[in-house]
Amino acid sequence: MTISQLELANAIRVLSMDAVEAANSGHPGMPMGMADVATVLWSKFLKFDPADPHWADRDRFVLSAGHGSMLIYSLLHLTGYAKPTIQDIANFRKLGSPCAGHPENFELPGIECTTGPLGQGLAMAVGMATAERHLNTVFGDDLVDHRTWVIAGDGCLMEGINHEAIGLAGHLKLGRLNVLWDDNRITIDGSTDLSTSEDVSARYAATGWHVVACDGHDFADIERALAEAAADPRPSLVRCRTVIGKGAPNKGGSHKVHGSPLGAEEILATRAALLWEHEAFHLPEALTDAWKEIGARGQSLHADWNQRLSDHADRAEFERRMANKLPDGWSLKSHIDSLIAEPKKIATRVASSLALEAINASLPETLGGSADLTPSNNTQTKAQVALTAEDYSGRYIHYGIREFGMSAAMNGMALHGGVLAYGGTFLVFADYARPAIRLSALQNAGVVYVMTHDSIGLGEDGPTHQPIEHVMSLRIIPGLDVYRPADAVETAECWELAVQRRDGPSLLALSRQNLPQLRTETSENRSAKGAYRLKAAEADRRVILIATGSEVEIAIGVAQQLEAKGIGADVVSMPCWSRFDAQDAAYREDVLPHARPDEILRVSIEAGTTIGWERYTMVDGLRFGIDRFGASAPADKLYEHFGLTADAITAKVLARLGN
Amino acid sequence: MTISQLELANAIRVLSMDAVEAANSGHPGMPMGMADVATVLWSKFLKFDPADPHWADRDRFVLSAGHGSMLIYSLLHLTGYAKPTIQDIANFRKLGSPCAGHPENFELPGIECTTGPLGQGLAMAVGMATAERHLNTVFGDDLVDHRTWVIAGDGCLMEGINHEAIGLAGHLKLGRLNVLWDDNRITIDGSTDLSTSEDVSARYAATGWHVVACDGHDFADIERALAEAAADPRPSLVRCRTVIGKGAPNKGGSHKVHGSPLGAEEILATRAALLWEHEAFHLPEALTDAWKEIGARGQSLHADWNQRLSDHADRAEFERRMANKLPDGWSLKSHIDSLIAEPKKIATRVASSLALEAINASLPETLGGSADLTPSNNTQTKAQVALTAEDYSGRYIHYGIREFGMSAAMNGMALHGGVLAYGGTFLVFADYARPAIRLSALQNAGVVYVMTHDSIGLGEDGPTHQPIEHVMSLRIIPGLDVYRPADAVETAECWELAVQRRDGPSLLALSRQNLPQLRTETSENRSAKGAYRLKAAEADRRVILIATGSEVEIAIGVAQQLEAKGIGADVVSMPCWSRFDAQDAAYREDVLPHARPDEILRVSIEAGTTIGWERYTMVDGLRFGIDRFGASAPADKLYEHFGLTADAITAKVLARLGN
Repeated sequence: MTISQLELANAIRVLSMDAVEAANSGHPGMPMGMADVATVLWSKFLKFDPADPHWADRDRFVLSAGHGSMLIYSLLHLTGYAKPTIQDIANFRKLGSPCAGHPENFELPGIECTTGPLGQGLAMAVGMATAERHLNTVFGDDLVDHRTWVIAGDGCLMEGINHEAIGLAGHLKLGRLNVLWDDNRITIDGSTDLSTSEDVSARYAATGWHVVACDGHDFADIERALAEAAADPRPSLVRCRTVIGKGAPNKGGSHKVHGSPLGAEEILATRAALLWEHEAFHLPEALTDAWKEIGARGQSLHADWNQRLSDHADRAEFERRMANKLPDGWSLKSHIDSLIAEPKKIATRVASSLALEAINASLPETLGGSADLTPSNNTQTKAQVALTAEDYSGRYIHYGIREFGMSAAMNGMALHGGVLAYGGTFLVFADYARPAIRLSALQNAGVVYVMTHDSIGLGEDGPTHQPIEHVMSLRIIPGLDVYRPADAVETAECWELAVQRRDGPSLLALSRQNLPQLRTETSENRSAKGAYRLKAAEADRRVILIATGSEVEIAIGVAQQLEAKGIGADVVSMPCWSRFDAQDAAYREDVLPHARPDEILRVSIEAGTTIGWERYTMVDGLRFGIDRFGASAPADKLYEHFGLTADAITAKVLARLGN
Repeated sequence: MTISQLELANAIRVLSMDAVEAANSGHPGMPMGMADVATVLWSKFLKFDPADPHWADRDRFVLSAGHGSMLIYSLLHLTGYAKPTIQDIANFRKLGSPCAGHPENFELPGIECTTGPLGQGLAMAVGMATAERHLNTVFGDDLVDHRTWVIAGDGCLMEGINHEAIGLAGHLKLGRLNVLWDDNRITIDGSTDLSTSEDVSARYAATGWHVVACDGHDFADIERALAEAAADPRPSLVRCRTVIGKGAPNKGGSHKVHGSPLGAEEILATRAALLWEHEAFHLPEALTDAWKEIGARGQSLHADWNQRLSDHADRAEFERRMANKLPDGWSLKSHIDSLIAEPKKIATRVASSLALEAINASLPETLGGSADLTPSNNTQTKAQVALTAEDYSGRYIHYGIREFGMSAAMNGMALHGGVLAYGGTFLVFADYARPAIRLSALQNAGVVYVMTHDSIGLGEDGPTHQPIEHVMSLRIIPGLDVYRPADAVETAECWELAVQRRDGPSLLALSRQNLPQLRTETSENRSAKGAYRLKAAEADRRVILIATGSEVEIAIGVAQQLEAKGIGADVVSMPCWSRFDAQDAAYREDVLPHARPDEILRVSIEAGTTIGWERYTMVDGLRFGIDRFGASAPADKLYEHFGLTADAITAKVLARLGN
């Protein structure tokens, strides 16, 4: 018995509607609407091998419209991936099932990235496609020669990040990137006519994309369009005209089928309309066999590729890089030693560029960039040339004024593997990139954010450009390591830690202004513990000053004034909260011993919000910071204006101590 | 002596370069490049009266490329606004000068909005132009009939928000909106060719915009293009081909002139090239007179308008609305009374819709919307019809999947005056809108954010959709009131406070899941104090449970279990941190009395990050929350999974108490 393409597609439809019904929650409309397109893509175009979801040269498939997660769960199951099982699908959206509400890369191999926050899947795919072209130039066609396929919905296309992502893809001429747009004319509020009048195809064409359209329910037409997309040297948008919830006779085509179960009655009606006689989560063998055969398509390609890899001179390096592993014993020790030998008074953004010189020289996988602030972020090292459409071997990307697009692209690169992506902007514009920073953390993507101009210390640009709440609000994102180094040595240490962490993101908050080098003795990476005693009290310890970044210098000044009055004061530099919180109790107690405020007064100094610092100062300690927006003036005037000087702080500490 | 247009423009050029030089900081390139265009706009098109910067029917001028702030400071000064004075300009970027690094609406009348974070000025202008059309339908041509003019740079056009903003403007056919694009082909990194290949004009045309081009240094051509833009019924993009830093003979046309002072030598060369013989900050009288004459252009228009206003039947209402003032004595008291009379177990997002029914019925100025989550955010009330290109009188906007664009547009509406804008999305997508939320606070814009699905309580959609860090990270934004109400009564109270605050933003975090009504006695607005004792200890007080939103119900459950064991426990509901922190010490001491943890144990319960809660629990208190990403499952399973149940919390409190 031959299985038709429609029957293959209907398997997706039925699994999707049944799983959503069983969960009493979910989005049946998109998987049912795009089942035909997905069937053609997976059966005729996508290069994949269910036996090895991590095959380095597989095509990447990104379901940017992540709410339609049952589409990819169905495809992974049907084509023979070990996971999800049919039971996992029956437990869709239940605690412990890898079939979560939205696709999560950490739940299932075969899910390339976590999607759901609209627009980001497509933007990550741009990063994946960039990494592919870059690695292709490094390792050659034999090892790296794959495509990136995306299914995106109207939401993905309306979000602002879409503009940034496709602008970058068009500029870099990422011809291996193909986006299948589920053009169903429906959003949650109703018809797309309620909110948009855009000619999407014309917009894509305006940014250098190839655009082709098809009837998303005509298998031959879909195949033609995908073939055209694959053949065109530009990135392609395939406009698939579809009916949302296709197959559901009464609710299909309406926004009612977008985000709610069909209900028992409509499920019966759909089964009847599709001539589907099988009960929920039971598929006939002929059908499952046909899908398994599709899954087996890639085996021989994969075997050939394995052979080429075995024969390849760069095999070890390729495998190291694709595993996102550092060379054995990699560190910045010799760079740090050189700083110790010759102390420097420089901005930490400049110290960062020195660290990057050492990093980029020793790690060929770094791929840097900036959202059009290269001369301010100091992110481009001397030997780095630009990655361009004409030469993908470059290791620096001019991302343009696209903070969010840059950050999402970096996530895609990290998840693709083979490159270590870092990118810069001003810290205040972390807000623009924040949804992608969150996804870095959720997805365990080892990207590094280089965020300079990290306080009022940037001076004259004023409150729109001065971070106040940013460092703290970033510390709160689970899984993100936020570093605020105090000098050149700490900057190198933090960079070393960020690079060494390949399973999650790091963010460096760096100063615009010069800072003295406070660390002058050789030692281990002291920033690794998140906080450490930089200066021990000389007189009897009555005060512990805890500071970060540019304010550590101020803390040292306060300590000196206190010691001059016979009041012992430790200075604790705390470049990274999350690392300090992860230390054992004995270490934390040593740095911040329990004591009553009248025994040891704890004082925090950070040129940002004081909310949150109670964690380390105790409520009865003192917190110096800025709990309002900044102002426009030279940096030194602002530090005075906001009371963040050694003199002003010492006076308040003395007052509290009753001196 | 007649003053030529070039001489008028050169006054801007010289003031700009001199002020940047005096500050040794700033951006001369843009003001010098756009001086000719701005001169034509202000002298021939812009409707304004320096004598009354608040004239309701003035054209709105938005310098979206805010780094070119000297352009608007020059224009305001030259045309005769009371501020800035020439001394203010000489003190550009110094502490206390209203001429801040970027234009700040709170520093100078005549600055319509704060710009600098790229892309947002244009997006706010979309809101201003929407408010204009809406008010035009309400009050008629006699009172409301003005344009919105924007100067934007490449950065504004590359940012993602540009896509959202122009998509909305094109869809709403905002023909009174005209954007003058400073097409100088230069960004900070260098040529725009480094990062973009886009046909900007084609992209704008694809979203329903009219596009016209001109030579930005040919006065007649500029005038022709602006006239065409003004005449076209669509929103217009005027592509002004310019040379950045025009007039500077050696540095003009290069990115070196973008963000740095020209330097003494180049300033001399520029003076020579412009045949400019006057010293810095001294302008010849003939020139200042010519500019003053331009400033006087609007006087008679303004006088005519004043007459029409005097004669207008709706004068009082118009003035009330344009001043963003509520009707005398406005409150939600009767709505709250009705809730007390008939308690409801409903989600706070539903309670919000009930409050909105009362608000929208009593305040004609509300203009609601949602970023395509209307049925989830419950933001549209029964009588609200959509504002569309065909009928601007509607009071509900389908913003589409454009969280950031919506939020920036709301800022523009608030700053335009006459409307009270509120808009909804999921709380997790506050991240997408965060840069605009920050600008709401900085600009004192009284918008209301309605953010539903505020915790793991949203259930199955999983970690991408579950806010963990969001409530806390929003509380940290200076000037933003974040509310997380616990039941229907608190929701109404928080809405009342949000509406009553017309000089700053409020954000409501609302539950998807049903919550019992905990407040059943008539009283004043208890949420006004930010936190209050919802339930007093019956037995000897040993514990204070502090909770917000959906977790107040859990706190009540814990208290009941503790009381059953003879342990007295207060329950403090804390819907708004910032309001509580603003109370006097006596009130705060009454709610949260100082005591050692072994006397009174403080416990916080909130289904989000625990970072920050030390402020109220003390470090030695207990904090229940979630310090990792969520999971996909039904809400009740998740609350169990994360230990946020009365049973689990009671057990841990008892353990701490040694029971």
